[in-house]
Amino acid sequence: MTKTYSYAAQNPKDSLKPFTFDRRVPGADDVQIDILYCGVCHSDLHTARNEWHNTLYPSVPGHEIVGRVTAVGASVSKFKVGDLAGVGCMIDSCQQCASCAEGEEQYCENGFTGTYNGPVFGGANTFGGYSDNIVVKEKFVLRISHGDANLAAVAPLLCAGITTYSPLRHWKVGPGTRVGVVGLGGLGHMAVKIAHAMGAHVVLFTTSPNKREDGLRLGADEVVVSSNPDEMAWVTNSLDFILNTVAAPHNLDPFLALLKRDGTMTLVGAPDSPHPSPSVFNLIFKRRKLAGSLIGGIQETQDMLDFCAKHGIVSDIEMIAIQDINEAYERMLKGDVKYRFVIDMNSLKKEANVA
Amino acid sequence: MTKTYSYAAQNPKDSLKPFTFDRRVPGADDVQIDILYCGVCHSDLHTARNEWHNTLYPSVPGHEIVGRVTAVGASVSKFKVGDLAGVGCMIDSCQQCASCAEGEEQYCENGFTGTYNGPVFGGANTFGGYSDNIVVKEKFVLRISHGDANLAAVAPLLCAGITTYSPLRHWKVGPGTRVGVVGLGGLGHMAVKIAHAMGAHVVLFTTSPNKREDGLRLGADEVVVSSNPDEMAWVTNSLDFILNTVAAPHNLDPFLALLKRDGTMTLVGAPDSPHPSPSVFNLIFKRRKLAGSLIGGIQETQDMLDFCAKHGIVSDIEMIAIQDINEAYERMLKGDVKYRFVIDMNSLKKEANVA
Repeated sequence: MTKTYSYAAQNPKDSLKPFTFDRRVPGADDVQIDILYCGVCHSDLHTARNEWHNTLYPSVPGHEIVGRVTAVGASVSKFKVGDLAGVGCMIDSCQQCASCAEGEEQYCENGFTGTYNGPVFGGANTFGGYSDNIVVKEKFVLRISHGDANLAAVAPLLCAGITTYSPLRHWKVGPGTRVGVVGLGGLGHMAVKIAHAMGAHVVLFTTSPNKREDGLRLGADEVVVSSNPDEMAWVTNSLDFILNTVAAPHNLDPFLALLKRDGTMTLVGAPDSPHPSPSVFNLIFKRRKLAGSLIGGIQETQDMLDFCAKHGIVSDIEMIAIQDINEAYERMLKGDVKYRFVIDMNSLKKEANVA
Repeated sequence: MTKTYSYAAQNPKDSLKPFTFDRRVPGADDVQIDILYCGVCHSDLHTARNEWHNTLYPSVPGHEIVGRVTAVGASVSKFKVGDLAGVGCMIDSCQQCASCAEGEEQYCENGFTGTYNGPVFGGANTFGGYSDNIVVKEKFVLRISHGDANLAAVAPLLCAGITTYSPLRHWKVGPGTRVGVVGLGGLGHMAVKIAHAMGAHVVLFTTSPNKREDGLRLGADEVVVSSNPDEMAWVTNSLDFILNTVAAPHNLDPFLALLKRDGTMTLVGAPDSPHPSPSVFNLIFKRRKLAGSLIGGIQETQDMLDFCAKHGIVSDIEMIAIQDINEAYERMLKGDVKYRFVIDMNSLKKEANVA
């Protein structure tokens, strides 16, 4: 067993604190990774605070993991010690169902195993990336082809990147399509960069007029302040697809009204209370669709990483020490981050060495 | 001008009463039709009572019209005097926009002209099929190939038929697909018949256990009582497509949960107050879609009529006299009709002759 240092929530109320546990010895199919960086996703906060009412404690969040391979099992062929490697939101799935067979492990009919807080139904609780190492089946480990230069900024691709890449690919965004991105946060800023790289015309919607310049810099062709009805009216009935990245409950109708006939708005944010009910008329009168999408499959995550490496895409990040995670959560709730916190895991390792 | 007898609502509160107005003399492109039968659609009631807040008065409802051609303009080539003819929900559209060019006049970018209560924005208020004749552009008149035998039962195809046929075609329902139909009313019973004829496996959802036999008779392969969680659990994650025909506000989540990954539930009922907000988790975790659909295009309506004639499909109807329309509305609100009222327009003509 490998003694593992981490930060964990012990209950919904208290802040995250140091927590020690054992990782398994790598099996024949396993890759052990020394974690260098871990992104901070809004799901981490939802889970730590039990806002989705399914948290098992203690809870060690973190599913945007980048690190270096320190051991591989006898059957492992894609990784060797010293390689860079990534781990995203899943560490296992049934590998038997139709979704797994089609490389859509995120929709596993028997429920994938989350990198943390999984399996939700019975069995052990998995511990995530706010830790100094992790042991994961090779099949669920990703290759990192970005190189060493900006490795911390690659970490958020493992969730924020794939969560936006997958629906943009699924709904066939590319040259000639007009795409809306709602919200300029961790997910939204990745969506703008990726949709732009895919060749689409990108319209960013934000409630913050002061994010206009940033939106254009990140790759948006237009930035619309969504609280301004005049600006919204300019784009009515003009978009083929909207990726809505806002997790906070909000009125969906002003955005649905921007879709062309047969257009789709896909939600990737999971609110802790429902959005106001969308107008059926907004759907009926243009045969519009409201959809949802969940992260992406493992092969698709690899495709996304390779696509981002090819196009020079990383996340815009602010690096923090793990000791600052609770303050980072508070700032994240206020939207005070451009655009993703990433934990430098050296901060944890130093603390562990002192302890 | 042609003096025309009808029944009209003069305001949202009062019952429908006799009303006389003038139809235009047929122009070069026009077909004049002696109305034999007109179906009674829930939209008629919504409009007569201004429940969608856009009714122009006086309001003559009726958009499920079947009759016989009594005059044609000089340019008319598809119809001659004595032919059977049908008119549905639209009598005109811009014929310039992308939707019109693609035969999707129901999504006309400039707004189609409804058979009644149209154009909503400015201009004259059109008067519908609760009348003894109508004059319509040839382009918006449908051929009836069912023959004379059961003509009254053909009338509801012009709205209830196309409103269900169009989404079933659009979402590619056919052999090998498992289709849910929610609600066994005017729309629902047509959806069951048409989906069955398309070769799909049809699961009907109803709140009324006493509709089970009728559902099977109409063509459903299975009938599920939607208020029974055990019966609903049998079909979880098993349907490719659901056509939800219920106009009353209701919880959409139990039905969304029945869809397979990538499945779609399409709403064709337009509630006068919103449904409870659907769970985003239900959309996200299977990449499901919630959509809407509005009637169908003119060519598609012709295709539907021909398809129904070929498969021997008509509506199950209860014939009424126009003098009974107000009572019929009350019964419709209670779901007390199997499954569509159709007005025998002889009742109007007799009253007009006496007057």
